[in-house]
Amino acid sequence: MAGTKYAYVKNFELPDPLLPNTFIVLRVDGHAFHRFTDTHTFAKPNDERGLLLMDHAARAVMEEYKDIVLGFGESDEFSFLLRRSTSMYNRRESKILTTLVSHFTAFYIFYWSTYFPDTPLQYPPTFDGRLVLYPSQKEVKDYFAWRQADTHINNLYNTVFWALVQQGGQTTTEAHATLRGTISSQKHEILFTRFGVNYNALPSRYRKGSVLLREIDLGTEFVSHHSPLLENAHVAVNNSENTFPLDLVADSPGLGETNFRATKKRRKAVVQVLHDDIISDEFWEKRPMLLNGE
Amino acid sequence: MAGTKYAYVKNFELPDPLLPNTFIVLRVDGHAFHRFTDTHTFAKPNDERGLLLMDHAARAVMEEYKDIVLGFGESDEFSFLLRRSTSMYNRRESKILTTLVSHFTAFYIFYWSTYFPDTPLQYPPTFDGRLVLYPSQKEVKDYFAWRQADTHINNLYNTVFWALVQQGGQTTTEAHATLRGTISSQKHEILFTRFGVNYNALPSRYRKGSVLLREIDLGTEFVSHHSPLLENAHVAVNNSENTFPLDLVADSPGLGETNFRATKKRRKAVVQVLHDDIISDEFWEKRPMLLNGE
Amino acid sequence: MAGTKYAYVKNFELPDPLLPNTFIVLRVDGHAFHRFTDTHTFAKPNDERGLLLMDHAARAVMEEYKDIVLGFGESDEFSFLLRRSTSMYNRRESKILTTLVSHFTAFYIFYWSTYFPDTPLQYPPTFDGRLVLYPSQKEVKDYFAWRQADTHINNLYNTVFWALVQQGGQTTTEAHATLRGTISSQKHEILFTRFGVNYNALPSRYRKGSVLLREIDLGTEFVSHHSPLLENAHVAVNNSENTFPLDLVADSPGLGETNFRATKKRRKAVVQVLHDDIISDEFWEKRPMLLNGE
Amino acid sequence: MAGTKYAYVKNFELPDPLLPNTFIVLRVDGHAFHRFTDTHTFAKPNDERGLLLMDHAARAVMEEYKDIVLGFGESDEFSFLLRRSTSMYNRRESKILTTLVSHFTAFYIFYWSTYFPDTPLQYPPTFDGRLVLYPSQKEVKDYFAWRQADTHINNLYNTVFWALVQQGGQTTTEAHATLRGTISSQKHEILFTRFGVNYNALPSRYRKGSVLLREIDLGTEFVSHHSPLLENAHVAVNNSENTFPLDLVADSPGLGETNFRATKKRRKAVVQVLHDDIISDEFWEKRPMLLNGE
Repeated sequence: MAGTKYAYVKNFELPDPLLPNTFIVLRVDGHAFHRFTDTHTFAKPNDERGLLLMDHAARAVMEEYKDIVLGFGESDEFSFLLRRSTSMYNRRESKILTTLVSHFTAFYIFYWSTYFPDTPLQYPPTFDGRLVLYPSQKEVKDYFAWRQADTHINNLYNTVFWALVQQGGQTTTEAHATLRGTISSQKHEILFTRFGVNYNALPSRYRKGSVLLREIDLGTEFVSHHSPLLENAHVAVNNSENTFPLDLVADSPGLGETNFRATKKRRKAVVQVLHDDIISDEFWEKRPMLLNGE
Repeated sequence: MAGTKYAYVKNFELPDPLLPNTFIVLRVDGHAFHRFTDTHTFAKPNDERGLLLMDHAARAVMEEYKDIVLGFGESDEFSFLLRRSTSMYNRRESKILTTLVSHFTAFYIFYWSTYFPDTPLQYPPTFDGRLVLYPSQKEVKDYFAWRQADTHINNLYNTVFWALVQQGGQTTTEAHATLRGTISSQKHEILFTRFGVNYNALPSRYRKGSVLLREIDLGTEFVSHHSPLLENAHVAVNNSENTFPLDLVADSPGLGETNFRATKKRRKAVVQVLHDDIISDEFWEKRPMLLNGE
Repeated sequence: MAGTKYAYVKNFELPDPLLPNTFIVLRVDGHAFHRFTDTHTFAKPNDERGLLLMDHAARAVMEEYKDIVLGFGESDEFSFLLRRSTSMYNRRESKILTTLVSHFTAFYIFYWSTYFPDTPLQYPPTFDGRLVLYPSQKEVKDYFAWRQADTHINNLYNTVFWALVQQGGQTTTEAHATLRGTISSQKHEILFTRFGVNYNALPSRYRKGSVLLREIDLGTEFVSHHSPLLENAHVAVNNSENTFPLDLVADSPGLGETNFRATKKRRKAVVQVLHDDIISDEFWEKRPMLLNGE
Repeated sequence: MAGTKYAYVKNFELPDPLLPNTFIVLRVDGHAFHRFTDTHTFAKPNDERGLLLMDHAARAVMEEYKDIVLGFGESDEFSFLLRRSTSMYNRRESKILTTLVSHFTAFYIFYWSTYFPDTPLQYPPTFDGRLVLYPSQKEVKDYFAWRQADTHINNLYNTVFWALVQQGGQTTTEAHATLRGTISSQKHEILFTRFGVNYNALPSRYRKGSVLLREIDLGTEFVSHHSPLLENAHVAVNNSENTFPLDLVADSPGLGETNFRATKKRRKAVVQVLHDDIISDEFWEKRPMLLNGE
């Protein structure tokens, strides 16, 4: 057969299986998002539309890939936890990594106009990603604690910084200088005394990031958490029901290799978006399936 | 500082440098494109709009990443060759792989409406990808020969198959049965005698796939190869000129780590789309920079 | 400096760190030992001298590398468990792997004449090795259970096989035929009825392999487990006391990178050789330090 | 079958194939040889017996593994080049690496008494090793040039250093101080004016290291290069003729997986030890098989 004499080049494709029975964490990061958010005039320090869009893309990825049991997002990054025993794509690293990063990218762009109806894309946003393996539950909890602590640190800094610039009339250079060496309590103080802002009263989405997980039969749906801005998002989701069903039973192409079997119990599982504390043990203790699930 | 106690989890991110001075080939494949093309009613066996969109996405990736010196596409896959000495992202495997796959995905969706103005996306297409290292020039040539031979084999089969179904009235099962065991010359014969089709007169894009490379100062541009259907694509491209310039000199965010310096010579380099034979040595001999370029 | 222009070749040495906080298991196997044991007229099915020599080499490795907390040997193979948190050689795979395999090989040859005083080496024995990572305690226990179950299966087969050949007068081909398809109880039966051998009364070393670990302050020493044949081994060990001390406090070159500090408690730790059941949980429950040790 | 329930642990043994068609270089280094050579009273700066023993061990490895086409040794290290297309052990990294390091260790100890008849081993020497892949011929040449340049630099330094200490009466601290900042010509000058030593007249073995390769039908043998001290080495080699034959045709266990077929031409190939310049192109041009051999 023609082509056979060249087929030897396939031997250079080396196997890349991930160590079995380890937790796989994928972290997706916005590529050059400083420029992207400038170009598309995102609000500072937080653009609610942008964060909702990140959550929506992440949720869509999780609905497509049931082996992702947890997501956590802040700013232009999202982390996903695959269950320890996943055999998705036979645990081939490149396959898992690229498929998920591609899906995240694709959903972000696909849902763009839902959240930015008046802001056409000048050019498409992109993301990079990496997989990290964690052998034990403790490290997984600490990984997500690390990201949520990072959310807090960054958001507090950015909130004061942009208050100094937008309301305090400082240049960005001056604002950085003002903040240099300040500790957390001093930043709270500046916010409160100079701008009348109680940091802890800001939306938990900004302060704690977004936690995505499947909650069973809670009688609520993803969209119920959303701001009015999301009304048409809801419609959009419903319109594409065959493809990204909120009812997870529908046959999903992403599940082909994972032998997912829809059960009565799972029928009601919906990906929820919370803005809760995941640093405390309580979060994990209430949801033992996240780390123990077979 | 808060968060410090968790930062140890970063130690689980292991280095993944690719062997220096090897040719890096990226192959991107459509994810579940059988379903995607059915849903979006692509023409069989070849949908010119879909192929042009693939080419456009690939060209945009190459314009963003100058270290990609060659692309080859067929059907729903595209292969890219990075120059041997590239230090893009310090040759970190995950970073290169995910960034490029994300860009390809993003451009495909971004330019979708240009090629399918009357077919809104039901859900976003996605791609997976892998990197393969080749130590020598011979293997690189054979890799691309392998893909082009594959193009020929698949396209000949599909052309006869769909002629039997669409014009011959066979079921798909019958068509497969008709073709079972036939050799190349027999397939040509069926096409010619039963459907009056001279296979070799079909568009070279279908028979040979698309070859993308930078040609210097040829006085032609990418779009000149295109069908009338592309008139508005041209406009679209021009509208987003700042972002995906045809003039490669414009500062590109993807080049940050590669220390690319625009030279006079490169100023005129434009990514061209050819449908030529890349199996013969002649293709490579005419373009020694592809394999020798420092 | 001369040589500088060539030093770039060092960049091709890629990092190979092992995933942190996983259990590292090294398995060393005799290379072409069928031929080696034939040439050096080992007794079949078990040569006590050979097994004692394996144990001695393994013990010497463990005394040199304190981060090895457990060893298990049978036939011409030995497995070693490194404690989960070891930072030996910064967890570089090649360094750990080759250093340990080289030590095992070296000690085996060094102590050869102690166990085979009348059998000069015709050529030196060699070993290969591999590292395997296990993320959890369960897998580590199951790994050692797997090796000990293998010991049992192989030894039972070999014991009957060689009885058929040596005492039953069968050819090796006939003996294999006799055993084909027999289950465990049938093999016991053959041994007992035809050769008067109660398999369970055979030395536990043959049936269970050798378990090496550090037991604290038990008032017994390695050599007390040994047969009279080992009297001069004891002498040999004492003679080289400075180098491979039974008292582990002596400064050992292999510990340079592990920051081992001898404590009072460890002063009495001596590598013991047991022939106990390690498949049952009891073995591990009695020694929580094997799997929990920081 | 017993043991089956544990066999899953084997799934944690991940594949580790080396990239095809790359040159594989193994570098073996003495482990803690500063201490080893002190304990065994090696002469400084060069101990001829020790270097001959290194050469002998390396030669034995090369006679066992025909896919090693070149060796280079200096001090306590040896580098080996495997031919580009080798399929030894299916190019499994751990298998190749540990087998070769174990052989080198084993031969070094096995032949110890031949070169150090009056110096019994106090404890066994050990080695570590690593594999490095090189995609092109240039890097292979530069790798060996790097090692030989290193030989020159180290040996010149050590020769002056030990002259200052042994003949000049300096302490080691003083000798290091004397040499600090000196360039090559100044070291030559010190040697010549203060100790009457013409560096270039020293044995080429010390200045250039040892180059091991198979030369065809030269009518000379390895041992002919050796000093009288090696008379009994020759005898020892002859005594173990069946195992490590100088006639390479004899069936060797190491060749099992490499499908080596002895040819007339190879019948006369003998591993030679040279002390020639391998930095110049001439060395390689005279021996195109080293880099081109299929």
